[in-house]
Amino acid sequence: MKITMAHGSGGKATSELIAGIFEKHFHNPVLARMEDSAVVPGAERIAVTTDSFVVTPLFFPGGDIGRLCVCGTVNDLLMSGAKPQYLTCGFILEEGAETEDLEKITASMAETAKEAGVSIVAGDTKVVEGHGGIYINTAGVGFVPAGVDIRSSYCKKGDVVLVSGNLGDHHAAILSERMKITNTIKSDCAPLGEMVNALLEAGVKVRSMRDVTRGGLGTVLNEFASASNCRIELIEEKLPVSAQVRGFCDILGLDPLYMGNEGKMTVVVAPEDAEKALACMKNSGYGENAAIIGSVVSEGYGEVLLRTPIGGTRIVTVLYGEGLPRIC
Amino acid sequence: MKITMAHGSGGKATSELIAGIFEKHFHNPVLARMEDSAVVPGAERIAVTTDSFVVTPLFFPGGDIGRLCVCGTVNDLLMSGAKPQYLTCGFILEEGAETEDLEKITASMAETAKEAGVSIVAGDTKVVEGHGGIYINTAGVGFVPAGVDIRSSYCKKGDVVLVSGNLGDHHAAILSERMKITNTIKSDCAPLGEMVNALLEAGVKVRSMRDVTRGGLGTVLNEFASASNCRIELIEEKLPVSAQVRGFCDILGLDPLYMGNEGKMTVVVAPEDAEKALACMKNSGYGENAAIIGSVVSEGYGEVLLRTPIGGTRIVTVLYGEGLPRIC
Repeated sequence: MKITMAHGSGGKATSELIAGIFEKHFHNPVLARMEDSAVVPGAERIAVTTDSFVVTPLFFPGGDIGRLCVCGTVNDLLMSGAKPQYLTCGFILEEGAETEDLEKITASMAETAKEAGVSIVAGDTKVVEGHGGIYINTAGVGFVPAGVDIRSSYCKKGDVVLVSGNLGDHHAAILSERMKITNTIKSDCAPLGEMVNALLEAGVKVRSMRDVTRGGLGTVLNEFASASNCRIELIEEKLPVSAQVRGFCDILGLDPLYMGNEGKMTVVVAPEDAEKALACMKNSGYGENAAIIGSVVSEGYGEVLLRTPIGGTRIVTVLYGEGLPRIC
Repeated sequence: MKITMAHGSGGKATSELIAGIFEKHFHNPVLARMEDSAVVPGAERIAVTTDSFVVTPLFFPGGDIGRLCVCGTVNDLLMSGAKPQYLTCGFILEEGAETEDLEKITASMAETAKEAGVSIVAGDTKVVEGHGGIYINTAGVGFVPAGVDIRSSYCKKGDVVLVSGNLGDHHAAILSERMKITNTIKSDCAPLGEMVNALLEAGVKVRSMRDVTRGGLGTVLNEFASASNCRIELIEEKLPVSAQVRGFCDILGLDPLYMGNEGKMTVVVAPEDAEKALACMKNSGYGENAAIIGSVVSEGYGEVLLRTPIGGTRIVTVLYGEGLPRIC
């Protein structure tokens, strides 16, 4: 069935769409109340985030926009040290979108929410003119345990920088799909709760933590360097990149440092906790290729350097504009 | 300046857009931390909601998409009895959107947030191909005071139904603007915090409360009747509609019962509190035309009836599909 403007009217066609697809997959006691706001239990400190997802194609190797939107928002909450609890989702559907696709996406959101341990407690649907596109905004609420305080401005000299796995997989998967390049690269789209829990429960002193998404690792670390006013040095040969993605990048002239992932994080920890952090990450789901990739070498000037195998360094700049074909 | 795909890249162009427009208008200590999630103080029970805004035109008499998106989300939180606290905003910008428009909209959001007493604590921007459109998703978090419990399923026989003012103003204003009809009808777009506070502080026993938006009063009251399994009877001549909107509807064959407002609410209260509720609403901002419009006449069957001036009744059905030219 194709989405029509009537599905966005707020009347019976909208109700049928909600009952037929969203309720079926998202059902929980909070949503079942069908109020405009979900009233849910709270906490001392809460974390709040939002993200919109506009990826094409909607379905790709390793995931789909539904898995992506849940992972993206859950991961953003996790990065502040919060335990993700509740998600809202706002669908903006272009007229002509297929309800079959919408249902697959919704089922994928429900499954991913279950994996990540979050409830989808509020939703909204709008229909606009267009060509069958589907956009999803997810906002998330999490609870922050007492004593947890993680910020991009907390990096100190001597701290160690880790990344949770291979760079560029999501970006390369989406580009391959768009450019009809045949390979077996899959998106790494995944919720990172197990890994973050492991780090916090092991008592690792986490200074800064961020998922590596749009803009890539280069952009995230520049944000840390700038917020903490420190110089971060990366060791180029330590950066984990799969052979297949490396080949893909070489052919297309892409730099994995600026490619988006959707199930990877970078974390800056106190030097004495570096090995413990690495073990926590490697032993968690989606962390088998975690690596120590660099350190904070000085304070007083915010920049990111890359030390190359022949001993030189180059500055890792902030991405300006479209360094790469866009994927989200 | 026109929005380009580069503004959605997550790199420097995105940062410049954020710094140049969003930070300028939304600045607060939480946003200034520039993390992916905002960590904010919490509460025992929280309310969570989301809504996407796709209105055209972006600017209209009485408001704009910025004022609209803040009011819509704040009002949804208020309707569950929550005190609105935090908003997130996700912008989906079509390539070619004007940054001047975006700035006006952002300023309007900031001003409306101030009026409504909420902080905008997280945001996201995506750019998609298209024709210069601007879509905004806002999600909201509010705290629910102890003892407050308002649901659409709580209507009882004898309860009294009120509405906070004239029906159809927002819908008529948007349609007039689109159809280039010259009149002085303005959108009623407004945050309803003062009114809801007045009702709760006066101890009015509120059963059900809902803002009257897309779908109109007819749709909202059908939702109450269905959730509470009760028959609601409205008195047609009590429904407040301005002379100008009445004339507009007569000419175009529209029914104010299905027209969207953006600063009106309907509330069902215990019979002994009806006059007190009316006084609270009339004495609050945006409530001067509040009225008692009907009552719950029986239980056991969910429907809404309209008693006409000549003594007959007709069933107020649920809106199916596009009963009206769409405005949101």
